[in-house]
Amino acid sequence: MQSDMPSPDRRGRPTVDEYERGVLAGDRTILGRAITLVESNLPQHREEAQQLLRRLLPHTGKAYRVGITGSPGVGKSTFIEVLGSELTREGHRVAVLAIDPTSSVSRGSILGDKTRMEALAKDPKAFIRPSPSGGSLGGVARKTRESLLVCEAAGFDVILVETVGVGQSETLVAEMVDCFVLLLLAGAGDELQGIKRGIIELADLIAVTKADGDNAQRAQQAKVQSAAALRLVPPLSAHWKPRVVTVSAAEKKGIQALWSLIEEHRSCLCSVGELTEKRRRQLLRWMWSMVEEGVMGDLRSHAELAEQLPSLEQRVLAGEATPTWAAERILEIFGARP
Amino acid sequence: MQSDMPSPDRRGRPTVDEYERGVLAGDRTILGRAITLVESNLPQHREEAQQLLRRLLPHTGKAYRVGITGSPGVGKSTFIEVLGSELTREGHRVAVLAIDPTSSVSRGSILGDKTRMEALAKDPKAFIRPSPSGGSLGGVARKTRESLLVCEAAGFDVILVETVGVGQSETLVAEMVDCFVLLLLAGAGDELQGIKRGIIELADLIAVTKADGDNAQRAQQAKVQSAAALRLVPPLSAHWKPRVVTVSAAEKKGIQALWSLIEEHRSCLCSVGELTEKRRRQLLRWMWSMVEEGVMGDLRSHAELAEQLPSLEQRVLAGEATPTWAAERILEIFGARP
Repeated sequence: MQSDMPSPDRRGRPTVDEYERGVLAGDRTILGRAITLVESNLPQHREEAQQLLRRLLPHTGKAYRVGITGSPGVGKSTFIEVLGSELTREGHRVAVLAIDPTSSVSRGSILGDKTRMEALAKDPKAFIRPSPSGGSLGGVARKTRESLLVCEAAGFDVILVETVGVGQSETLVAEMVDCFVLLLLAGAGDELQGIKRGIIELADLIAVTKADGDNAQRAQQAKVQSAAALRLVPPLSAHWKPRVVTVSAAEKKGIQALWSLIEEHRSCLCSVGELTEKRRRQLLRWMWSMVEEGVMGDLRSHAELAEQLPSLEQRVLAGEATPTWAAERILEIFGARP
Repeated sequence: MQSDMPSPDRRGRPTVDEYERGVLAGDRTILGRAITLVESNLPQHREEAQQLLRRLLPHTGKAYRVGITGSPGVGKSTFIEVLGSELTREGHRVAVLAIDPTSSVSRGSILGDKTRMEALAKDPKAFIRPSPSGGSLGGVARKTRESLLVCEAAGFDVILVETVGVGQSETLVAEMVDCFVLLLLAGAGDELQGIKRGIIELADLIAVTKADGDNAQRAQQAKVQSAAALRLVPPLSAHWKPRVVTVSAAEKKGIQALWSLIEEHRSCLCSVGELTEKRRRQLLRWMWSMVEEGVMGDLRSHAELAEQLPSLEQRVLAGEATPTWAAERILEIFGARP
């Protein structure tokens, strides 16, 4: 081990210099610790994390960022394991991150148990990180976004960001990736399973999973239905028309075809300059959503307000006060208004 | 004229007492002026408006509130004119309000020209009010919500709130009504015209317009397509399945059938207690969105911040700073953070 690398006995944490060198050298141990630093809520850690990220920023942006969402039961882990292994076999370096808003409750239902992606977890060209836990959904998303940057600086050229789609998590993932893939499962009847409101509209690609055995025909029908649904949704991009495929992780069918579409999506966006534009938009939106979350968080944790809020809400619900009047009282108490 | 009614020579504005009595008596002149008061941005007017609304609140809530949206060209005005006239003939008292986010620019493209609804404008049982103009979309929505309350206190039992669906206006309308109707026009080809992202998911009812003459068959196809699209969208209510009809305002066909569905929707929501619940939710959401808009408005108009914002955004876009760091600087400058 070189002398400028952190030694395990150095009272714990590496310096920012050491983090920087380790991450850029692709050192997996340091990478993991750098993500832990980024995920920390301690003020000193957050400050160091921002210093580190600032140094890493020039080395980020080269990976293709792919979001993957789908309800529990759709076969997301198996799909990611097969896709990820396929990609590392082709020479890619693949990082798998996650946003799981339930992780603070369930201690990480997504990727928390690495054994769910056994092969990929052992793959030297892959890096799997469970969802950060705790705090607001916005806070969890901030951590995943910054971990994504750290992984890019460490040389991963494909970042898969997984979410189970609870709350607004799939919107947050769509806001941090270049390509958003929705996994669907064919239902027993005339409907698709587990489609959440508004989610079809976020998808650049849809993959109907478990298109194997008895289920193959139903998957085919679901593909036709999803394609019809997509036609009724105004496209996200003027240059890309969302597409639907069927995949079988068990039979390893359709995975390659899906990846080709992801690459087609990438070259399409790149060729018209839309990728750069999309990432710029995402950066500013990320900044503003953190500002909004910060201000509203301060407001909600305001002591005097917390005391008066129940009675204000009660008066609105009882029809004794208008929401406008109550909102003005809240702003006054918060001190934003004279 | 009674002595306690405002006299025209009383240096202009009625007192809050006079407004209250006039509105409750259904005096159309006072009603119009009360809405003008509610729409005013002057601090003194806003205070009086809140006093008035507080007195009127016990008399509100009895109307059925119906939102109507559709792109320009879908035939919204004609549809509302025919529906409104049908309803007043049946004995209803109908108020038509609007949210038009473009009204500050175009001086009121919706309902600004009352001649677009000539018959209804002359109907003594109807009251038509153009969209309030100016200010943010949230501000425009606040004015329309409060005007709706004033109309209810004045005894109107059907309130139609129209929007052209620019920006987030149709979401705001959906948030203030009991039943949300989406008007669609059959396209020339395999698609529906002018569907905006996410809007199908807000609809309790869809009406395909101009189902007459040469267009009747296309309208029928559009109905089938919309019904298919609705099946792929998770329902808003556990008790109501959105429905699609075709209507022709020119031939006055399907309007009655649509109104029957609106009434069916109402009794469905009432019978399971969902209407009360929906309105309570709307009240609190309204309050919080005003708080959010207020805080963010103050932030955006903060002088020092306005000065530093361009360079902060520039640094984020140039990859010199993370959005997290920039967001923290913004919060510091705003004074929300130490």
